[in-house]
Amino acid sequence: MSELTHLDGEGRARMVDVSGKAETTRVAIARGRLDTTAEVLALVRGDELPKADVLATARIAGIMAAKKTSELIPLCHPIPLSSVTVVFELHESSIVVEAAAKTRGQTGVEMEALTAVAVAGLTLHDMIKAVDPAAVMNDVRLVSKSGGKHGDWVRPG
Amino acid sequence: MSELTHLDGEGRARMVDVSGKAETTRVAIARGRLDTTAEVLALVRGDELPKADVLATARIAGIMAAKKTSELIPLCHPIPLSSVTVVFELHESSIVVEAAAKTRGQTGVEMEALTAVAVAGLTLHDMIKAVDPAAVMNDVRLVSKSGGKHGDWVRPG
Amino acid sequence: MSELTHLDGEGRARMVDVSGKAETTRVAIARGRLDTTAEVLALVRGDELPKADVLATARIAGIMAAKKTSELIPLCHPIPLSSVTVVFELHESSIVVEAAAKTRGQTGVEMEALTAVAVAGLTLHDMIKAVDPAAVMNDVRLVSKSGGKHGDWVRPG
Amino acid sequence: MSELTHLDGEGRARMVDVSGKAETTRVAIARGRLDTTAEVLALVRGDELPKADVLATARIAGIMAAKKTSELIPLCHPIPLSSVTVVFELHESSIVVEAAAKTRGQTGVEMEALTAVAVAGLTLHDMIKAVDPAAVMNDVRLVSKSGGKHGDWVRPG
Amino acid sequence: MSELTHLDGEGRARMVDVSGKAETTRVAIARGRLDTTAEVLALVRGDELPKADVLATARIAGIMAAKKTSELIPLCHPIPLSSVTVVFELHESSIVVEAAAKTRGQTGVEMEALTAVAVAGLTLHDMIKAVDPAAVMNDVRLVSKSGGKHGDWVRPG
Amino acid sequence: MSELTHLDGEGRARMVDVSGKAETTRVAIARGRLDTTAEVLALVRGDELPKADVLATARIAGIMAAKKTSELIPLCHPIPLSSVTVVFELHESSIVVEAAAKTRGQTGVEMEALTAVAVAGLTLHDMIKAVDPAAVMNDVRLVSKSGGKHGDWVRPG
Repeated sequence: MSELTHLDGEGRARMVDVSGKAETTRVAIARGRLDTTAEVLALVRGDELPKADVLATARIAGIMAAKKTSELIPLCHPIPLSSVTVVFELHESSIVVEAAAKTRGQTGVEMEALTAVAVAGLTLHDMIKAVDPAAVMNDVRLVSKSGGKHGDWVRPG
Repeated sequence: MSELTHLDGEGRARMVDVSGKAETTRVAIARGRLDTTAEVLALVRGDELPKADVLATARIAGIMAAKKTSELIPLCHPIPLSSVTVVFELHESSIVVEAAAKTRGQTGVEMEALTAVAVAGLTLHDMIKAVDPAAVMNDVRLVSKSGGKHGDWVRPG
Repeated sequence: MSELTHLDGEGRARMVDVSGKAETTRVAIARGRLDTTAEVLALVRGDELPKADVLATARIAGIMAAKKTSELIPLCHPIPLSSVTVVFELHESSIVVEAAAKTRGQTGVEMEALTAVAVAGLTLHDMIKAVDPAAVMNDVRLVSKSGGKHGDWVRPG
Repeated sequence: MSELTHLDGEGRARMVDVSGKAETTRVAIARGRLDTTAEVLALVRGDELPKADVLATARIAGIMAAKKTSELIPLCHPIPLSSVTVVFELHESSIVVEAAAKTRGQTGVEMEALTAVAVAGLTLHDMIKAVDPAAVMNDVRLVSKSGGKHGDWVRPG
Repeated sequence: MSELTHLDGEGRARMVDVSGKAETTRVAIARGRLDTTAEVLALVRGDELPKADVLATARIAGIMAAKKTSELIPLCHPIPLSSVTVVFELHESSIVVEAAAKTRGQTGVEMEALTAVAVAGLTLHDMIKAVDPAAVMNDVRLVSKSGGKHGDWVRPG
Repeated sequence: MSELTHLDGEGRARMVDVSGKAETTRVAIARGRLDTTAEVLALVRGDELPKADVLATARIAGIMAAKKTSELIPLCHPIPLSSVTVVFELHESSIVVEAAAKTRGQTGVEMEALTAVAVAGLTLHDMIKAVDPAAVMNDVRLVSKSGGKHGDWVRPG
């Protein structure tokens, strides 16, 4: 039977004990998408500003946020990240954010990858909100993870 | 003509100068939705654990994240928040997160409200991921804002 | 009738709205005491190390912690501290910590003063624990506060 | 002869070198007590608010503070916490806070457990201070620790 | 007679009381220089990588660090920054970093500007250290400040 | 051929993958110098205040900053520091800051040592700026490092 492992038998929040878990190399990939307008995409592409810092700023924000995951998510364990990458794909009126996080440790890095995506997305949101206050972040989700006791997981379909 | 105010004339990131803006009371409301399964919703509702800490944990995470917004979003100004609230609506297989942020200051609180929603959502994601690794956060967006030079804004439609 | 203002009508945590409160100068003083041994006091007094950094380290820790109060205490408002001081009194087998915090703002600084005392005390604890693991912190309390709608308060007796 | 290991031979603060110490599983348990009034206890028990967030908020604050220990206590080493739990006992006019911290590392987790107790206690203090500004935190102390070179320690008596 | 205002009459550190000072608009400009090699400059200029993120990364690091000044410098007051900019000048074998910080508050922003310069410089250092471990940061200094009781100050010469 | 390892093939910033590197004991030593006036040195030496907290405050700031390195420098990995020390040499009109950092991990501690030097220097700057606003930090540099794949490095000359 399934259960919420972050709660004890009486429903109280706790940081789960991972001290008995094996140290393995763990990787997680997450994605999300900021839906905005074609006008914003033109500005982000920097049609007129060939070295605009928009994507670099969001990338740095996402990488730094991955390192803050255990400060933001109350029951996450602090883990020694061995790498984080954040990349963007520009579509007609949306920006896809993909983050990959890796560690060698006793617990997974799903939340680090998801946090990088969310904060990179929020940073894009911040930079474009004067032009498009109606932008929406969608499809923030785990794509795959590997390492750990439960083996690999890849999003179905 | 529209432009990205967070960039200077050469496309470089900067924290925009707000020192000339009026101090007014500003409010922003944001929403988002975590799409998961009916099984997770039963656990979150605590069908069997009447005092489960799931929503309280996510609420606290969202409130604390609102206070960290200017640490997470590189070009956000630090602002003295005068209130933050985070509430949840439980649907059949999704949880809606709504956050309201308020300040009396020289710049808006849209990012604070959005950050509260995103981090509360990530915290829910963390607590349910052992049961539903495929959960997806959608529709993270500004609902309305008031105060400030540009007047009130309410999401169309 | 009294009530817990940090909860809404349904018992949910929230950061109370202070936007309607007046900006006044507010001061709070808190105290606490680390009970340890005469041997530790001799070391802290630096009988043999006339410039030992023990108290300076605890003082800095307390001052820096006061600035982190709203990061540590979930429902505290971020406030612009205008001063913080931390002083110690050395007794035969105990160290009294007193902190004063001041702000000009819409909400009080009691928690800032108490946090400075608690973290200065924990820092002393850390530095002496190899000699006295049994040290105990007692009497961490508000001594007085002034400013704000409810007027001054001084601990009775 | 005993000495303060956090000072070098000239009395200057330093972060002690633990690189030569063995990695072992280490556990520490700490406790403290907030002395308040029976009226406050009735509110915290939520006689009228069966799902009040008071204890959940203080628990989350304590767990998150344990993860911030090395940021708060100047000479503490950053350590990879493998679990943290915070529980409360409600008495007639006091609340006992107990925290347990665990790591697999080169240095102990006493300060993490004590920090969780202190910050959970401060958070309770914050939530009840409008009703009882005179509340006092007492008996913040280490209860036991295990793991490490010096073997186990249990508070006498 | 001059004195160190951050110490009280007995030489103890304190956060100076600024509550009596006027709120004025204050600006500070600081500069520094990373001395490295012509080879590094070629890489930073991105002779082969026209959109390299080196300067954008250092700029974001500097801006974010300015917002962390009061967390890093023990006796600095938290202040509401109204703008921060960081710009670079590329010379034959050195990179000049200039930061400007602005606030409307009761205390100056010199440390914010200096912190932005230092951390932007450290970030450049980090990115180039595999190529030039011998790089040196020099001339980190205040260039000018305006606002505040003491009036304007411009570095002589 | 040399290259900037913090950039990927398209010039985008990334946190380099260190998961394949060996865990070894790594040490780095960095130095810097604050150039000020003989008058300031007299005050720092505490000619009249034999226990003045100036150096203790800067030392604690440097040690705490070393632990924050991966929060400040965007592409730095979080590492478990096993020791940090900061010492000062007082000259006629300058203060030399030296920091040593040590870890057992997969990546070096150069940035931790450099960050400790820079922030200890900024803290000195802050404490003396009312007396000497023209102080300048110079020669912030790596002195030596050991451990790691590339072997030991000692600054030439």
